[in-house]
Amino acid sequence: MTIKKTTLLAAALLGLAMGPASAQSAQSAQPAQQLERIEPANWWVGMMNQRLQLMLHGQGIAELKARLRPYAGVRMLGSQRSDSPNYLFLDLEIQPGARPGSLQLELQRAGKTVLSPAYPLWARAPGSARRQGFGPRDAIYLVVPDRFANGEPRNDQLDALGDRLDRGNPSARHGGDLAGLAQHLDYIAAMGFTQVWPTPLLENKQPELSYHGYSPTDLYRIDPRFGSNEDYRQLVARAKALGLGFIQDIVPNHIGSGHWWMQDPPSRDWVNPGQPYLETNHRHSTVQDPYAAASDRQRFQDGWFVPSMPDLNQRQPLLATYLVQNAVWWIEYAGLSGLRVDTYPYSDKAFLARWSAAIMAEYPGLTMVGEEMSDNPLMVAHWLKGRRNADGYVSAMPSMMDFPLHGRLRDALTEPEGRGYGVGLGKLYEAMMNDALYPEPARMVLFEGNHDTNRIFSALGEDEALMRMAATVIATTRRTPQFFYGTELLMKSPLERDDGVVRSDFAGGWAGDASNGFSGAGLAPAQREFQAWLRRLLNWRKTASAVHGGSLVHYNPLDGVYVYFRADARQRVMVVLNKNKTETPLALARFAESLAGRTHAVDVISGQRHELGSSLNLPPRSSLVLELQ
Amino acid sequence: MTIKKTTLLAAALLGLAMGPASAQSAQSAQPAQQLERIEPANWWVGMMNQRLQLMLHGQGIAELKARLRPYAGVRMLGSQRSDSPNYLFLDLEIQPGARPGSLQLELQRAGKTVLSPAYPLWARAPGSARRQGFGPRDAIYLVVPDRFANGEPRNDQLDALGDRLDRGNPSARHGGDLAGLAQHLDYIAAMGFTQVWPTPLLENKQPELSYHGYSPTDLYRIDPRFGSNEDYRQLVARAKALGLGFIQDIVPNHIGSGHWWMQDPPSRDWVNPGQPYLETNHRHSTVQDPYAAASDRQRFQDGWFVPSMPDLNQRQPLLATYLVQNAVWWIEYAGLSGLRVDTYPYSDKAFLARWSAAIMAEYPGLTMVGEEMSDNPLMVAHWLKGRRNADGYVSAMPSMMDFPLHGRLRDALTEPEGRGYGVGLGKLYEAMMNDALYPEPARMVLFEGNHDTNRIFSALGEDEALMRMAATVIATTRRTPQFFYGTELLMKSPLERDDGVVRSDFAGGWAGDASNGFSGAGLAPAQREFQAWLRRLLNWRKTASAVHGGSLVHYNPLDGVYVYFRADARQRVMVVLNKNKTETPLALARFAESLAGRTHAVDVISGQRHELGSSLNLPPRSSLVLELQ
Repeated sequence: MTIKKTTLLAAALLGLAMGPASAQSAQSAQPAQQLERIEPANWWVGMMNQRLQLMLHGQGIAELKARLRPYAGVRMLGSQRSDSPNYLFLDLEIQPGARPGSLQLELQRAGKTVLSPAYPLWARAPGSARRQGFGPRDAIYLVVPDRFANGEPRNDQLDALGDRLDRGNPSARHGGDLAGLAQHLDYIAAMGFTQVWPTPLLENKQPELSYHGYSPTDLYRIDPRFGSNEDYRQLVARAKALGLGFIQDIVPNHIGSGHWWMQDPPSRDWVNPGQPYLETNHRHSTVQDPYAAASDRQRFQDGWFVPSMPDLNQRQPLLATYLVQNAVWWIEYAGLSGLRVDTYPYSDKAFLARWSAAIMAEYPGLTMVGEEMSDNPLMVAHWLKGRRNADGYVSAMPSMMDFPLHGRLRDALTEPEGRGYGVGLGKLYEAMMNDALYPEPARMVLFEGNHDTNRIFSALGEDEALMRMAATVIATTRRTPQFFYGTELLMKSPLERDDGVVRSDFAGGWAGDASNGFSGAGLAPAQREFQAWLRRLLNWRKTASAVHGGSLVHYNPLDGVYVYFRADARQRVMVVLNKNKTETPLALARFAESLAGRTHAVDVISGQRHELGSSLNLPPRSSLVLELQ
Repeated sequence: MTIKKTTLLAAALLGLAMGPASAQSAQSAQPAQQLERIEPANWWVGMMNQRLQLMLHGQGIAELKARLRPYAGVRMLGSQRSDSPNYLFLDLEIQPGARPGSLQLELQRAGKTVLSPAYPLWARAPGSARRQGFGPRDAIYLVVPDRFANGEPRNDQLDALGDRLDRGNPSARHGGDLAGLAQHLDYIAAMGFTQVWPTPLLENKQPELSYHGYSPTDLYRIDPRFGSNEDYRQLVARAKALGLGFIQDIVPNHIGSGHWWMQDPPSRDWVNPGQPYLETNHRHSTVQDPYAAASDRQRFQDGWFVPSMPDLNQRQPLLATYLVQNAVWWIEYAGLSGLRVDTYPYSDKAFLARWSAAIMAEYPGLTMVGEEMSDNPLMVAHWLKGRRNADGYVSAMPSMMDFPLHGRLRDALTEPEGRGYGVGLGKLYEAMMNDALYPEPARMVLFEGNHDTNRIFSALGEDEALMRMAATVIATTRRTPQFFYGTELLMKSPLERDDGVVRSDFAGGWAGDASNGFSGAGLAPAQREFQAWLRRLLNWRKTASAVHGGSLVHYNPLDGVYVYFRADARQRVMVVLNKNKTETPLALARFAESLAGRTHAVDVISGQRHELGSSLNLPPRSSLVLELQ
């Protein structure tokens, strides 16, 4: 696991891969100074934050003095050194008036320039700073790119990166890539989704489990088995043309053990100690619990997630700056609509506040959604912008994944109805009151499943009626909905967590697949039916203003039926879930305040029109979405 | 169920029973005007609130005009009438300088005085306004008076009040009374308790289930089967001399169907409609849930609890004033340290804010603890003074019963340990972080059981080791502890709710009982042992300043062991729960920050001294409370 040392020429090539950075060899009698990397490889003029810190990596580079050749609107504020001789950090100021172009850095020893790398400053795309993130108007499609579609078989296995291609092994690479995703953007858009969240795409030069992407080994490089940085950029642009935003999955907490830093760390405190190996205690509560022991809190934040994922020490200020810039770089470079932030609470808590604030200051309309895998709404709410926390903690995160409501939704559908107040559908009803904890409930992302859960179809006992109820709630309650690829095909999994199987291949993503979820060929009737049903629901949702931003009023579930309404000035929607196995008459008098005098209702899936008399007949085990007229 | 009409003479007798109120017949040619009641029967000078509203009840009394004979510092502000001809409400102002004495009211028809009741103004007990309520320095003993001890057999059955004495029937009266309680105050104090909370003592003139007291039929009268108002007052005084405060159980939400109001309601809107009968939906969330339908919220607050408990309409301003005054009257009359408020969320929410604020304004140091029977800490926190609620609701309640932690404590002890993060003792550990929701966690009342739960000894599988763990947590975590009578005797019950059996008779409270919990005679060894153990723990607790007000630091439970520390400037306490069935060595290095260099520890139960080396040997299934030295 050594990383290939690059000469100046190689550095130039690297720069090419990353963008048009370049470095020139300087005339010198001494042996050629190595400059292996400059990160980020480029920057932009006109950013809100005028500061830029470059990380220069090369043998003995810390002993060089740096200067910047005069460039209008840009000046070098200074340089910083860590305890490593091989890193030099340059602080630049890029003033508002600066124009795009190429900076010329000079690195000198004893007054003589030994390296003079060029550094590109790009123009920003129009409207970049004011981009709008995803939100309750959207529906997110989560894909595991290695498992979605293989558009380019030539990149399936690259020996330099390790790991192996083996579609028969749930933990090996299966060959899915950006080209495959690009080929099926039209499918995703036609399903009614408006945002794509792929699990991480960055290089994972790991001997195993590289397919999931959560062990990044180069924070500025798309894994070549998925494609290039430029491929990614083009994919995002193509998606945008189809009305699809892109959400990048980002991991500030850790890197993969194959990261090049591990061979030559930027500082001794860059990574939290791995010798002796101390695993995180996974006690998320320690960073919120007023009574947690300091040692437990430290173990949670600084322990490693697993041995293959060295834990970054975000209290290191140079690393903190690196991580902020890295996120900004991808947003700006690729044109993202947002970030999904992995293992959110595991990072240093004070860092998370600064990191999220810095990114949101740069892109006030962006959406970032964090992963706090907890059933406790208080624990999730802690990380939200606008939340008044007891410990005074202030966050800038606009959204979090709604694990608590996800859990209660599944409980509500699987638990039999019965007397008592938190039973069956009552679990979902009672969970909604926790929205009092969330500053903006509609921005919370509610999901039926993801790459870390089991498949909801299996969790619901392979019951299509319950699937429709789950999807109806996800799509119509006061949330930003997210679906996991293959849910529309009723994909299954073991009930116990089994990551590789949960992340099975999407049918039709590989040449020769027996069935094809994109074309419908070979699908079972139940699959085709559910897929078509969900397509109709999500496409209706695109224009459903009451669902995007309307009020929510819900009614105490009675006799196996849960009813709620979404309404704004333009539209009034009634949602009914009936868990009974027989046709159920629903007396409407209870709902008078929400029916508001409407006399008819149109089923948004079937188009059927119902008269709203004293009662509505609900088909057995049905979910109805009705627009009132 | 008619109530006995009282003549003026009878009203005088009533006044005697209630305090020294009296009413004099006026000279008049007309038939004697009936005045059946004046409530409250007396008041005090020097109250913070200078307003007093008297309810006068009597046939046709609303047509009379009222005046007050001159009395220094007291004036009549006016009178109010409802839609009933039989009630008159007089508003008085009692200015700070007024002296105790007897007011003379005059009720006139056509200028002639037809009634001239005297109205007593008493002096307050010294320090009454500044009384200190109960809190984390205390330990509360909850008794069901009918089931604790029968000190006066002559009052066991009173035909005028209905219901019947039948010790063989769990739902009938068993004969326990204030005299029995008085006889055993020394036992309660010796056990280490410092507060007594009896379930309600007010008259329950109900044909059945009168024993529990939650169907009050006269809000100013102790049920004669328990004793008289004066007996109660003397009991509280006697308890105080033994270091025991008294907490009255109060029910602002409803009355019993046998209440005299039901024969002649003070107004048509005094009680929420009972025809047709509408039961509450018991959906506590509706008054907090931002999405609850208004109709569900109304049904929750205005529906009846059960058919025998008419629901009071606290939006009726005369009733609201009546209920405030009634609570203040009992606090002042009996000398209470606090109130336990039944069915808290079922009352009108705006009323609760005003009611609690009015009482706390009168007694700023008092403690009131409300019953919100919910597992959701957010729902419980909503009612607390100092809580910043999303809906802006402001409450004055200093404390609530901690149902969520009660539930998690039981779960933590009954669920086997295992991997994962919210399992076994981890459930208790993770629940503590919810304290971030509570403005004053130490004032929350944590209980092992009460009259509405099953018996904890049964819930814990009749396992004495788990009982000690439960009691240890109740007594040493950051809470105000409460124990249910008989827990110290390992009383049992079915696991399914069975009220009458849960509230079984305390052994030794009745002449001829086979065993005696007070003397210890006839108890099984396990009972005697647990009782003695709890007595030692609670008596130690009386002086444990670290437990009363110290910090709490707890540690991630590992391998079946949960450790936490309480500490203040004077004392440092280590609590260890070991669920393992074998002796368990506990390495101490993890706890360095809390051991703070202490080298020895003394077991507060056994007095045994341990050296704090690198490890501490924990006996199998043990709970240790250690004072560090």
